[in-house]
Amino acid sequence: MQHPENDKQYKGLVVNEGVQNLPQVNPYATFRRQKRELHAEEYVEGILRGDITLLGQAVTLIESSLPKDQAIAQKVIEQCLPYSGNSVRLGITGVPGAGKSTFIEALGTMLCHQGKHLAVLAIDPSSERSKGSILGDKTRMNELSTEANAFIRPSPSAGSLGGVARKTRETIVLCEAAGFDTIMVETVGVGQSETAAHSMVDFFLLLQVTGTGDELQGIKRGIMEMADGIAINKCDGSNVERAQAARVSFKNALALFPPPESGWQPYAETCSSIDKTGVLKVWKMVEDYIRFTKENGYFDYRRTRQAKYWMYETIHSALLNGFYQNPVIEKMIPEMEQQVLDNKISSFVAAHKLLEEYARHK
Amino acid sequence: MQHPENDKQYKGLVVNEGVQNLPQVNPYATFRRQKRELHAEEYVEGILRGDITLLGQAVTLIESSLPKDQAIAQKVIEQCLPYSGNSVRLGITGVPGAGKSTFIEALGTMLCHQGKHLAVLAIDPSSERSKGSILGDKTRMNELSTEANAFIRPSPSAGSLGGVARKTRETIVLCEAAGFDTIMVETVGVGQSETAAHSMVDFFLLLQVTGTGDELQGIKRGIMEMADGIAINKCDGSNVERAQAARVSFKNALALFPPPESGWQPYAETCSSIDKTGVLKVWKMVEDYIRFTKENGYFDYRRTRQAKYWMYETIHSALLNGFYQNPVIEKMIPEMEQQVLDNKISSFVAAHKLLEEYARHK
Repeated sequence: MQHPENDKQYKGLVVNEGVQNLPQVNPYATFRRQKRELHAEEYVEGILRGDITLLGQAVTLIESSLPKDQAIAQKVIEQCLPYSGNSVRLGITGVPGAGKSTFIEALGTMLCHQGKHLAVLAIDPSSERSKGSILGDKTRMNELSTEANAFIRPSPSAGSLGGVARKTRETIVLCEAAGFDTIMVETVGVGQSETAAHSMVDFFLLLQVTGTGDELQGIKRGIMEMADGIAINKCDGSNVERAQAARVSFKNALALFPPPESGWQPYAETCSSIDKTGVLKVWKMVEDYIRFTKENGYFDYRRTRQAKYWMYETIHSALLNGFYQNPVIEKMIPEMEQQVLDNKISSFVAAHKLLEEYARHK
Repeated sequence: MQHPENDKQYKGLVVNEGVQNLPQVNPYATFRRQKRELHAEEYVEGILRGDITLLGQAVTLIESSLPKDQAIAQKVIEQCLPYSGNSVRLGITGVPGAGKSTFIEALGTMLCHQGKHLAVLAIDPSSERSKGSILGDKTRMNELSTEANAFIRPSPSAGSLGGVARKTRETIVLCEAAGFDTIMVETVGVGQSETAAHSMVDFFLLLQVTGTGDELQGIKRGIMEMADGIAINKCDGSNVERAQAARVSFKNALALFPPPESGWQPYAETCSSIDKTGVLKVWKMVEDYIRFTKENGYFDYRRTRQAKYWMYETIHSALLNGFYQNPVIEKMIPEMEQQVLDNKISSFVAAHKLLEEYARHK
């Protein structure tokens, strides 16, 4: 899977922030257009061969909003699907400052040295505004980015969460077909994005840092119960004792939660991405979970449910967008909301008035 | 607000399980039809006067599926809306066995003796199947049911959660217009119903019992983070020490959660509905919360957001039902799902095929 030129190129992608952060545009796009258009079959053949150049170009098609690109992309995905699925999908979330990038860098490098093929993706709908807040900054993954076995792809900066999530999930398919056996999906634990990430991974890791609880401020409520495990990062220097104490508190807290469907009891490990200590303990937690859930059947059940989830999720957002983007509805909603807030009509009457209008004008 | 005959009648309602559990039918229905039909204005006038007979009959209209009844019901609600809102809305959830009914009985009786006017409602979409699992069994609220200031109404057994929730929320409006200053909404903490309850109350109380954690089994994950406070019930007899210990564990656990929007730090109290100890401590927690959130503005913000929530929630379920109840879609879905599960097409392609069909056949 070693392609010096691809390596260069993918690094080019990550380095070249200016370009990658233009909505809908990135280095491949220009690069690809210089050459003759490829057929879906050529991409598929290349991907199955492990050709990272073609993988990267196919991902660019997925990220493109051009109907012509999307048409090819969907063909490629369809033909890659039968070869996908054979990987461990790890979701990693945590507030900015939890050290997600350094953790991924540390763990990822170790896994590459074990001979694993690692694809690091991201879901960050804000990346357009935040100039690629995650995975955008190569300097944060200096070491990992030089690993030939690593494929790092910043979050598609495609606006809506739904769009970004779809592209990331479709990219997972291509990466797996290309032979990547370990997929990491990084997300910022502040918005809706971690729900999307949680719905496409096998293990959802919450990266925490110790402290008075202020660090939790940014984390959306409910995330702790979504986590299959917690890693308390920055367990180094003067922080070790607090990290150890935090591990115990989290352990006790997690024990108070109702046991998750998986039958797996989430727990917390401490680690230091700087000292590189405990990082493999965290990975062992993931491997133990995978073994455990493959034995009790939850692993397949979760993936099956995720496939359904994305089908229904896509349908629902399409139906709702159709409604809210209807000009008549758009005009009517503020007034209806106001009447509800003024106790002039009930929420239900307001809803039905809007639905009647929609039926008339769609 | 004392009406001996209403009291009799409402008791008749609660006693008469056989009737109340027939879908869409209940004692009032028959009772009402014997008399001449009333106009919306007559119901409203009676409700504002605090006439519990007419309140009960109006609630029956809300619960009725007859378009004619619904038409009157919506008029009544609309005219009562300006007089609603002046109450404390308390949601109470907990697994079966947590002692919700005895707790409500104990707390409710105390509040009535303080001169409060208490309406006890329920959201239990399963009540049709479970024969009114909550509030259906009068014997479980023997004492409270004799209080003239108490109005107890079992969950409407109307099938869908959306329907049940709507009816309960509309019933709150009428109860408040009738002068009830304290509304309790009971729900079983096992399904979706507590999300609905949480979305219509000011304070959401999780009733817990001590133990090895088995008691948590039934509770849906995420509920603990929805709770504004926890009451550890059955803190009596040989259970006192364990309950005290549990209070501390929950306190520590809650402290690990990110602080809720309200700025209020949820905590746990112990109580015994049998010994009647601690019950008023729990109520004090509710009162403190109300004062706190009224001062920082969150109280109104939460109610405003809830009003909007129900408007959008109603719209969304209507849009989705329109899709899923479309015969063409109904026929197509299993096949699409299968193709997704067999990795023949991606979740997104399947979704778009279904949406195209829907556009053609709606």
